[in-house]
Amino acid sequence: MDRRSFLKTSALGGSAAAASTLAAPAVAQGRITWRMVTTWGKNFPGLGTGAQRLADRITAASDGRLTVELFAAGEIVPALQSLDAVIDGSAEMSHGASYYWQNKSVGLSFYTGVPFGMTSRELSAWVRFGGGQEIWDEIYDQFGLVGLLSGDTGTQAGGWFANELTGLADIQGLRFRTPGLGGQVWQKMGASVTNVAPGEIFPALQSGTLDAAEFVGPYNDRAFGFHQVRKHYYTSSFVEPGLATEVAIDKAKFLDLPSDLQQIIRDAAQAEYDNMPSEFYYNDPIALDDIVKNHGVIVHKEFPEEIIVAGAKAARELLEEIIGGADALTRKTADSYIKAFNLLRTRTQNTDQTFALAREKYFDISDLG
Amino acid sequence: MDRRSFLKTSALGGSAAAASTLAAPAVAQGRITWRMVTTWGKNFPGLGTGAQRLADRITAASDGRLTVELFAAGEIVPALQSLDAVIDGSAEMSHGASYYWQNKSVGLSFYTGVPFGMTSRELSAWVRFGGGQEIWDEIYDQFGLVGLLSGDTGTQAGGWFANELTGLADIQGLRFRTPGLGGQVWQKMGASVTNVAPGEIFPALQSGTLDAAEFVGPYNDRAFGFHQVRKHYYTSSFVEPGLATEVAIDKAKFLDLPSDLQQIIRDAAQAEYDNMPSEFYYNDPIALDDIVKNHGVIVHKEFPEEIIVAGAKAARELLEEIIGGADALTRKTADSYIKAFNLLRTRTQNTDQTFALAREKYFDISDLG
Repeated sequence: MDRRSFLKTSALGGSAAAASTLAAPAVAQGRITWRMVTTWGKNFPGLGTGAQRLADRITAASDGRLTVELFAAGEIVPALQSLDAVIDGSAEMSHGASYYWQNKSVGLSFYTGVPFGMTSRELSAWVRFGGGQEIWDEIYDQFGLVGLLSGDTGTQAGGWFANELTGLADIQGLRFRTPGLGGQVWQKMGASVTNVAPGEIFPALQSGTLDAAEFVGPYNDRAFGFHQVRKHYYTSSFVEPGLATEVAIDKAKFLDLPSDLQQIIRDAAQAEYDNMPSEFYYNDPIALDDIVKNHGVIVHKEFPEEIIVAGAKAARELLEEIIGGADALTRKTADSYIKAFNLLRTRTQNTDQTFALAREKYFDISDLG
Repeated sequence: MDRRSFLKTSALGGSAAAASTLAAPAVAQGRITWRMVTTWGKNFPGLGTGAQRLADRITAASDGRLTVELFAAGEIVPALQSLDAVIDGSAEMSHGASYYWQNKSVGLSFYTGVPFGMTSRELSAWVRFGGGQEIWDEIYDQFGLVGLLSGDTGTQAGGWFANELTGLADIQGLRFRTPGLGGQVWQKMGASVTNVAPGEIFPALQSGTLDAAEFVGPYNDRAFGFHQVRKHYYTSSFVEPGLATEVAIDKAKFLDLPSDLQQIIRDAAQAEYDNMPSEFYYNDPIALDDIVKNHGVIVHKEFPEEIIVAGAKAARELLEEIIGGADALTRKTADSYIKAFNLLRTRTQNTDQTFALAREKYFDISDLG
């Protein structure tokens, strides 16, 4: 069944129909119902729960004047058609990761995560104070959308492999699922990269269509069961230093809202930019402990140096290509990002990282807990 | 003039009077005006601007049904009487740092920052997902308050000194302004620690009443002019790995609000928990560059190892004392914090820090910006 016929079927009997037939009287009372489609499974840890909380926050803060109803991947449209659903008017909001839409503009990748690039703290600083949002607005304006940061996973894990990696030789031709610019980096390094929607990763690993995959980190990955089919887990990614989620909104409908509802959406999205990573941080180490102790997973903190060095070289080459060749808005995004990155990383290195290393080296209270 | 007579005078002619005389008709229309007092100067970079944005977000998201009027330090009450102003009913909200109130409960310090303790990301994970908020609620319930995280500075700078520090001998008897548990750590190390309100630091450094002081970091400190009176700047603190701000609210009045306004306050406070550190991150490196290039400031990335080692020992001792001796709620806070800390730091070390070190070592695009 293709998406259009699925939509048609839905409209006859599903919950989408309820929202749609209620829409006219609801608007007449000054009450609106919006549909939020997502690229995530329903209540998938962190990503799906974060999307649900965003919907619920908006509904609660507006006292139901703007009720946001969430449709998980596949409920109205397949995961990777969420943005198109907003563009074609089937939904008002899409919760996903903007690098899924790099076929529309490579510039969108910069609002999710860049290999060896910004952490989630640095990304927020660039988007909110360094001009990033304004360029994002220009990109999405072409599609009648507004994009806002809506969550983040923190630095991700590197992925699931059948065997320990010893160097570059081991990844030549490796069928590896990793999306966005990170996928292009692994491709340059010799892997055979594909992107499949989150829900399709497990079966592809199981059947052997994929050799390896990365998705998020222990909390989310455990729920997918990747530890059942691959045992070597790398816990620090160099291609996804932070993965920001977005909420993309129908711009005309957003601007039609009274300004208090616009503010409610902005505040709720930014609150979740803190809340989602907090959920990941708290649950990741618990999940990691579980899959190691109870499921025989072997953890590797870091990829072999040869792979990291090649990754850094490939990441730089990729940015050079983007600056040199892409469309004007993508170049503008990359320029702004790189300038902000070179500034912000000094803050991280001089202050945050210096502290974190001193703490790791000199401070132990593991016996007090 | 003491605070009570100041308040009385204000009530006769100041802007506080306007809010107060308007209150009755406003409530009658379902429109409320609240006063937010702060421990910060008006629009002081990051802290004051963050408090103002929080007030403005609530006013905008509620379409003025709940209008929050901000009073900076000294406008209604002096900085360090902000919390008491909410307790005694002179204001509905206080924007400050909860470690300023450790004389009410040492447990409150854990919601601002602990020496060698949690980063801002880890703190949020503990407060929102690890049971921290619930204990905070118990502490503040004794005073008729609700506390919410409302901002963060990120890891702070270590402070301003007249000379380069070579070791512990240099800090014996040093009159150093640093508040909270961090102040107690420096005291244990031999410094003579005092806390003075933010606005009093500069004159005390200038007159020589203080030898040294730490406040926040380059962006905020530059606005205070500390670089004019001290030239040696340590950019990484070990006592304030993150400094969270709070908004403390009159609990009875908060619970009297309709649930949509409660949600609006919660979302706005959490949004600022992301926004304020973003403002600091973007502006800190710009300010640091300025004070080095244009004002002859000498930057030291890290304190001498002897001081860091002594600091870590003192921080551990302090936690042992708190666990062993304080009131039951403070012990409960410390226990919960330490358990969460030992869990969360593994996430930071295994994933975030491993990435950050690889990035620092292998990835340079300083020529592309």
